[in-house]
Amino acid sequence: MPNSPPTVHNFGAGPSVLPRSVLQTAQAEFLNFADSGMSVLELSHRSEAFDRVMRDTERSARQLLAIPDDYSVLFLQGGASTQFAAVWYNLMASKVVRDRSGTGQTLPPVDYLITGTWSKRAAQEASRLGAPVNVVFDASTDETTGQAFTGIPARNRWQFSGPSGRDAAYVYYCDNETVHGVEWDHVPEVHPDTVLVCDMSSNIMSRPVDVRRFGVILAGAQKNMGPAGVTMVIVRNDLLTRTEPASYPAFPTMLDYLVAQANRSLYNTPPTFTIYLCGLVYQWIKDQGGVVAMAQQNEAKLALLRQVLAHSSLYRSPIDPRYQSRMNVVINLTKPELEGPFLQQAQARHMVQLKGHRSIGGIRVSLYNALPLTSVQALVRFMTDFEHQVANQGQL
Amino acid sequence: MPNSPPTVHNFGAGPSVLPRSVLQTAQAEFLNFADSGMSVLELSHRSEAFDRVMRDTERSARQLLAIPDDYSVLFLQGGASTQFAAVWYNLMASKVVRDRSGTGQTLPPVDYLITGTWSKRAAQEASRLGAPVNVVFDASTDETTGQAFTGIPARNRWQFSGPSGRDAAYVYYCDNETVHGVEWDHVPEVHPDTVLVCDMSSNIMSRPVDVRRFGVILAGAQKNMGPAGVTMVIVRNDLLTRTEPASYPAFPTMLDYLVAQANRSLYNTPPTFTIYLCGLVYQWIKDQGGVVAMAQQNEAKLALLRQVLAHSSLYRSPIDPRYQSRMNVVINLTKPELEGPFLQQAQARHMVQLKGHRSIGGIRVSLYNALPLTSVQALVRFMTDFEHQVANQGQL
Repeated sequence: MPNSPPTVHNFGAGPSVLPRSVLQTAQAEFLNFADSGMSVLELSHRSEAFDRVMRDTERSARQLLAIPDDYSVLFLQGGASTQFAAVWYNLMASKVVRDRSGTGQTLPPVDYLITGTWSKRAAQEASRLGAPVNVVFDASTDETTGQAFTGIPARNRWQFSGPSGRDAAYVYYCDNETVHGVEWDHVPEVHPDTVLVCDMSSNIMSRPVDVRRFGVILAGAQKNMGPAGVTMVIVRNDLLTRTEPASYPAFPTMLDYLVAQANRSLYNTPPTFTIYLCGLVYQWIKDQGGVVAMAQQNEAKLALLRQVLAHSSLYRSPIDPRYQSRMNVVINLTKPELEGPFLQQAQARHMVQLKGHRSIGGIRVSLYNALPLTSVQALVRFMTDFEHQVANQGQL
Repeated sequence: MPNSPPTVHNFGAGPSVLPRSVLQTAQAEFLNFADSGMSVLELSHRSEAFDRVMRDTERSARQLLAIPDDYSVLFLQGGASTQFAAVWYNLMASKVVRDRSGTGQTLPPVDYLITGTWSKRAAQEASRLGAPVNVVFDASTDETTGQAFTGIPARNRWQFSGPSGRDAAYVYYCDNETVHGVEWDHVPEVHPDTVLVCDMSSNIMSRPVDVRRFGVILAGAQKNMGPAGVTMVIVRNDLLTRTEPASYPAFPTMLDYLVAQANRSLYNTPPTFTIYLCGLVYQWIKDQGGVVAMAQQNEAKLALLRQVLAHSSLYRSPIDPRYQSRMNVVINLTKPELEGPFLQQAQARHMVQLKGHRSIGGIRVSLYNALPLTSVQALVRFMTDFEHQVANQGQL
């Protein structure tokens, strides 16, 4: 290759760092995939070669997450934001949900747990489409700190729909909030009759998950699984049975899980190269020891940062330590005017994408699966050096 | 690179052949884009580097198609199939359309011109969502030949909505039908008050187009523009103004052109690598001499095939020559039992993806921009040889 790249430490929140070996494999076979004489990009989505890619990719995902046979795995387009709509449409159309919700003459309520930007957007989308949204809790203001989205309120402040907490068609939450850096440390208990829906876009495959607890899991690929452009949806098959005649809103075919399932995610042309790259990332995760090994590595990376935070007068986490995201560590400087110099010096050391989300500012360190421990080691060295430097200059 | 690929002639209907030089550029900078030390795949969609990619890509598209300033260019996900829904939702929400359609108490009719699988699916999608669809004509059975979708019926058999043909909110057609191989040789005349919507997925950038004739142009990338996973929508800005209060169906944010426009196609994470590759393809088209040069090359490629067809007892086109697609040439063998041997021998000569669409069978030769003339030359040599061979064997 013409250029020998510098070692860059990419702490971006997504699209984000990918495993170097995956990129090297994709580069090596970029012009000639599996001796076809063609790029993966040029393969028909109906060809045998691509069919193998699809099957291998799905099989790897099933292995990694121990997805039971009575769940479908779909590869869709449009990101989690499209799924915010699709989840509601599909579950409204689901016979299982409607049988439980009574007559089907009125739309049943849906329960949302609001822990940050993404769960809030999901609830707003359902409202836009006409859903009677019940907010179980909204952590947008912490009563103690006054800061937005720093953790998860005590259970006794949650308000599920209905007197016995079972009236909602489904209960929706986001497992890791990328913007605010809040991550669930457990699966919320809900009434066993209810369908649990979870957005795992930014922490999927970062630790084991008990898929059986969920009706639907959705996850954009561009954090832990691959590049931007594909979203994985894991859905329990009984939720795909339908009531006829329809008593739910009409919705686009392309958002219909039943259509995607019946066509094995090939109703129309899927994002073939993106799916292929996800398959390579899944294989890389398997080679690393699976999601258990990922969880250990991710804990080790977070531990390094926690250590710096624990002994610092400059760096502060606004987040309740129990719900500190292992994926996105939001850090505020006690001297906000030092943010600029911090980012500048980091950049000079090839540490990039450390700026917090434009909506809240600060620093954000993303620690996805593909980020090497060495990058975090380099960062914590820099953070310590920077703090010493500003302390010596009397700025702290 | 480890493997030296054989020369493959890829006649696939999409995803399809990409310009070799584009693939080589993407491969060369795959691990280190613009000296960033990162892959394009790893860039944040909010980074300056990717912002340049987006702006360059849009600028090239505007140059190539001479898109007027009062049109927006959007890069969306989900393929044309998603746009089948989005077009209806957006135009129903459009103040311009609704002002013209009267009270807004009832949904105005929408007019569809059915020339093949894709325009038919678009009409079906609008129906699914509750649109009062008027079929202006349906060429699914040619009265003379009895064959499906072989051309475009005479104008005097078209039935637009309303006595003066101006009642429809919009008139929808598909410029090139990939499955059946029918392509419009002109832009259909419609009442000047009506909004014309066109699916150009499989012939965009293959010839000049007068964008001013259209309200909306949509096109999936995976034929003439790049890989699968992004859809370009060109929309006249006045169609994005809205009536308040809303008197139209609620629809997903991700299908909302106004949201995409306001966020410059960055409302959520776009398919970054796919957009980057489209940008490289656009640059390649510019280097070739733009869409005028593409049109000349495409005519030359089709001419070679037409010549074989004109002198053959074996190969037959079912299509009205006037509407013969320059992109997808459907060929039937007069001895259908020779199809298998034809495809087999072609494959042995590295001519791939020649099988017709699974819904209609036969042979299909796709001649998109990136297919070199040399591939067509190789194919017509083979076709001629094959015909001689079977004639000599007494099979013809």
